[in-house]
Amino acid sequence: MITINKIIEAADKILPYAIKTPVLTSTRINKICGCNIFFKCENMQKTGAFKFRGALNAVSSLSGDVLKYGVVTHSSGNHAQALSLAAKLFGTTAYIVMPENAPKVKINAVKEYGGNIVFCVPILEARETSSAKVIDETGAEFIHPYNDYRIITGQATCAYEFLNQLGKEPDMIVAPVGGGGLLSGTALSAKELSPKIKVFGAEPDMADDAFRSFKAGYIIPQTNPLTIADGLLTSLGDKTFEIIKEKVDDIILCGEDNIYSAMRMIYENLKIVVEPSGAVGLAAIINNPDIFYGKNAGVIISGGNIDISEFIWK
Amino acid sequence: MITINKIIEAADKILPYAIKTPVLTSTRINKICGCNIFFKCENMQKTGAFKFRGALNAVSSLSGDVLKYGVVTHSSGNHAQALSLAAKLFGTTAYIVMPENAPKVKINAVKEYGGNIVFCVPILEARETSSAKVIDETGAEFIHPYNDYRIITGQATCAYEFLNQLGKEPDMIVAPVGGGGLLSGTALSAKELSPKIKVFGAEPDMADDAFRSFKAGYIIPQTNPLTIADGLLTSLGDKTFEIIKEKVDDIILCGEDNIYSAMRMIYENLKIVVEPSGAVGLAAIINNPDIFYGKNAGVIISGGNIDISEFIWK
Repeated sequence: MITINKIIEAADKILPYAIKTPVLTSTRINKICGCNIFFKCENMQKTGAFKFRGALNAVSSLSGDVLKYGVVTHSSGNHAQALSLAAKLFGTTAYIVMPENAPKVKINAVKEYGGNIVFCVPILEARETSSAKVIDETGAEFIHPYNDYRIITGQATCAYEFLNQLGKEPDMIVAPVGGGGLLSGTALSAKELSPKIKVFGAEPDMADDAFRSFKAGYIIPQTNPLTIADGLLTSLGDKTFEIIKEKVDDIILCGEDNIYSAMRMIYENLKIVVEPSGAVGLAAIINNPDIFYGKNAGVIISGGNIDISEFIWK
Repeated sequence: MITINKIIEAADKILPYAIKTPVLTSTRINKICGCNIFFKCENMQKTGAFKFRGALNAVSSLSGDVLKYGVVTHSSGNHAQALSLAAKLFGTTAYIVMPENAPKVKINAVKEYGGNIVFCVPILEARETSSAKVIDETGAEFIHPYNDYRIITGQATCAYEFLNQLGKEPDMIVAPVGGGGLLSGTALSAKELSPKIKVFGAEPDMADDAFRSFKAGYIIPQTNPLTIADGLLTSLGDKTFEIIKEKVDDIILCGEDNIYSAMRMIYENLKIVVEPSGAVGLAAIINNPDIFYGKNAGVIISGGNIDISEFIWK
């Protein structure tokens, strides 16, 4: 069980390496949305996303005997970069299983953080078999991108830090949901600190597996997601879903247009760089104004890894 | 004379309205540039630029008798937005003289902050005559965008705040130079706090009037500037130049390519939105690596007002 003490312990362990990311506000966004929003800017976290918290917590929890064989994961996204840097900081190797057609910018980012890329054919099963092969050959420890209590505990430090920075209790806190690592961690921290804080997951209409799973009470995997929020394409895991079912108040949706609007609002008013997935919290507020009207809402901006020069605004 | 006490007084006066903007660093930028850079993020200032400091200091220094007639300036840039908001906060009217062909995004920004736009034909003399006409008709107080000691004192609060945030003394501080309000203010604060801190102005090759003026010892006006850094097109004023001549150590240049590189580095690593002029400090470091090698450098990111969806990356 992930207790508040374990989260505090993780926060202390992470602090020397991670950035205590700023909380920003915008008078203009508040005026447009009809509520007071506090943005926790994990786009400014090391490696450009909250994922560094989980990866760091997982790697730092390994004993020297385990560490010497390295760590392995399958990811072409922010977890890959996060694990690469966490491994480097702890003097070990990160093996990153990636589809051979992954975008060059993502491949380069992993290399830059010192990750050791293992390419696989771009089908779902290949990443599992390739990961298993790496474990066989190297003895490396597998660190799942989200369905892992060490990861969830690390991600929980974000909301813990956020709520401490705020000083006063917000009415609600909103986190984007893909695999559920950030959302389950957020719910754990928020409900431990105050059961009165409502916790919402935010998800694109075009990848609404968490929404449907939450309503159904069992995991419905995502098939063929078409959203621009490419960090939220994954399905929930059993570990993250158990926590989400118990602790999250609701999952709210947003359209693709809302994501573009939210990104633009964030760029123009907060003056920070956000990736589409990172704007989904605000996008869900834009799409559900009645829930937030007149309230104080904390929103986690999950990441800022975007090739801005290639991005097509709509 | 602008003393350190006047700057401290201005900083205290501004504080309730302005943002104490964050100082950011990036391991990767430091590695690329071969020095330790501390970025003062005035792109995150109210109205998106340091200009708010000067405008607020100027407006707040006016007596009620003067304030009731309003304030006037000619600007289509960040000073226009800054003065509009400062005037609104002090319950008075800002008359903003702008060429009738000003970009719509700039017109709208001024309107949003409550500025009262007075259009003029797009030639240099028209803005002077239009300003004079507004003063005649309304009795409003003219607030020049930079050649005004109240403005310079306000801009000086940026470096004052920055150096206090840093705790330790940097080897140098770099500020972009257009009309010279920020650079002269920066030099005043830095040299008052420690004469050992070198102060550099950063300027595009394609608008190098400050560089040439500094070398010549007299003001050489800018003609036909072609840089993408559209906040730095103006020439120095006599008041800013007097301070720059006395207190600034050197003015260093950068190419247009350096500005694009610097913008990209800032977007990708600091994850913040910068306008071209705001990236000129870093661009000048990229173009002059020998000066900065192994040093601790403070760099002011002056503003972040850019229509990112229209911006063409090169």
